[in-house]
Amino acid sequence: MADEMGGQQPTKHQRIADDLKAAITAGDYGPGDRLPGENALAAQYNVAALTARQALKLLRTEGLIETKKGAGARVIAFHPIRRHSGLHGPPAPQGAGMSIREADEDRNTTIDVSVQKAEAPAQVAQALGLSEGEFVCIRSRRFIVDGRPVRLESSYFPLALLGGSALPVDLGEGSTHAVLSEFGHAPVHVREEVRSRQPTLQEATALGMPLERSVLKVHRIAVDKDGRAVEMSDTTLDSAAYVLSYGFDV
Amino acid sequence: MADEMGGQQPTKHQRIADDLKAAITAGDYGPGDRLPGENALAAQYNVAALTARQALKLLRTEGLIETKKGAGARVIAFHPIRRHSGLHGPPAPQGAGMSIREADEDRNTTIDVSVQKAEAPAQVAQALGLSEGEFVCIRSRRFIVDGRPVRLESSYFPLALLGGSALPVDLGEGSTHAVLSEFGHAPVHVREEVRSRQPTLQEATALGMPLERSVLKVHRIAVDKDGRAVEMSDTTLDSAAYVLSYGFDV
Repeated sequence: MADEMGGQQPTKHQRIADDLKAAITAGDYGPGDRLPGENALAAQYNVAALTARQALKLLRTEGLIETKKGAGARVIAFHPIRRHSGLHGPPAPQGAGMSIREADEDRNTTIDVSVQKAEAPAQVAQALGLSEGEFVCIRSRRFIVDGRPVRLESSYFPLALLGGSALPVDLGEGSTHAVLSEFGHAPVHVREEVRSRQPTLQEATALGMPLERSVLKVHRIAVDKDGRAVEMSDTTLDSAAYVLSYGFDV
Repeated sequence: MADEMGGQQPTKHQRIADDLKAAITAGDYGPGDRLPGENALAAQYNVAALTARQALKLLRTEGLIETKKGAGARVIAFHPIRRHSGLHGPPAPQGAGMSIREADEDRNTTIDVSVQKAEAPAQVAQALGLSEGEFVCIRSRRFIVDGRPVRLESSYFPLALLGGSALPVDLGEGSTHAVLSEFGHAPVHVREEVRSRQPTLQEATALGMPLERSVLKVHRIAVDKDGRAVEMSDTTLDSAAYVLSYGFDV
């Protein structure tokens, strides 16, 4: 198979950006610290100011810095959310939900929620083992942490498991674990598939992030003690805002 | 915090690319299938041929299609490698290594290996609980599947655990699990942290992938039965080539 790099020219701005990234990773520049400006970088690397500007743009795309007119470029103060899953250090507090918990829970979090009833889309029906035309409850959430939208999540529950044909009134609240436990279908096993790709226009818009920055996609299926799939969810995370941590015995 | 999308103009080519992506995901176009050409897309969406070309370039960047002069654009035939970790369906075969296994093991895989001895870099020393100046064995591997480089992995082992001051001769072969078991330090617990970001120039070059496509980064620490960190590894995956699957009880 042909090398996909093809005719791409490794450019000077990429090397400068890699240097600055390494310095940020190493802690030489901490959150809120100001990076050298375009002119200082241009002089240091003996390149045009435009090249230095492109290097800074790359760092902005990756969510490492923010630039403001007149204030230069500063290392972003938002530190990534660490999402813990599986066997991981101290046990999760009772009912915290599916052994998945997010550190930094004291951070200011707002959740936009919408709940609806619909026939299961083909992919959802297949994942949940439903027949054509069966209804699911869809809970769509957008998580905003410290004023920044970071996560989109759509959860699908077989409506038949939630006590009938009407939507439970309080479905907007509470963890997935709590919602399912209430109806006697607490999940006991979860499988998550993690991918990364560039965002769609819709995802980038909802997360207020640049199209050039990747998202993490998490596809989850939760199963109850009888082996029945009780939830499927599709989650989109701003890659600059999340670290996914999985612990397991071997 | 300001919306990072800022002045970015959602463009027509992104919408066309999103449509084509959805069609590929839905299976309307299968592996090897030819997509409509620039002119056909331009006519269908009533846009300039350049706009259609930009849409196809986006799909190429994401690793969904390959384009060849005169042959148009085809859906890529390489299907992603599924890497299973944790509790996941049928148990892993004995000694398969750390409960992590890759499906499709019949695929043609080549591994470039280099092994060296070095003082532990600061970040490695911290992760492995080593003192300054202690030696580690570093095994660097590049995995090539069906002719395509897909994965870079650097594993760090405390040299003291590997029987002394000389490098074990056969360290280049075998799974991490097998290597450590041989010296009585079989890992029993693993924690992996998953991130996504754009590749560095060095990573993109080694993986032969475009700088515009993201990589998955996996940072792993393995612990033996005495709670001692016996391996740290840093893995870089072409995001178009991998799906990470984690199973766990809740």
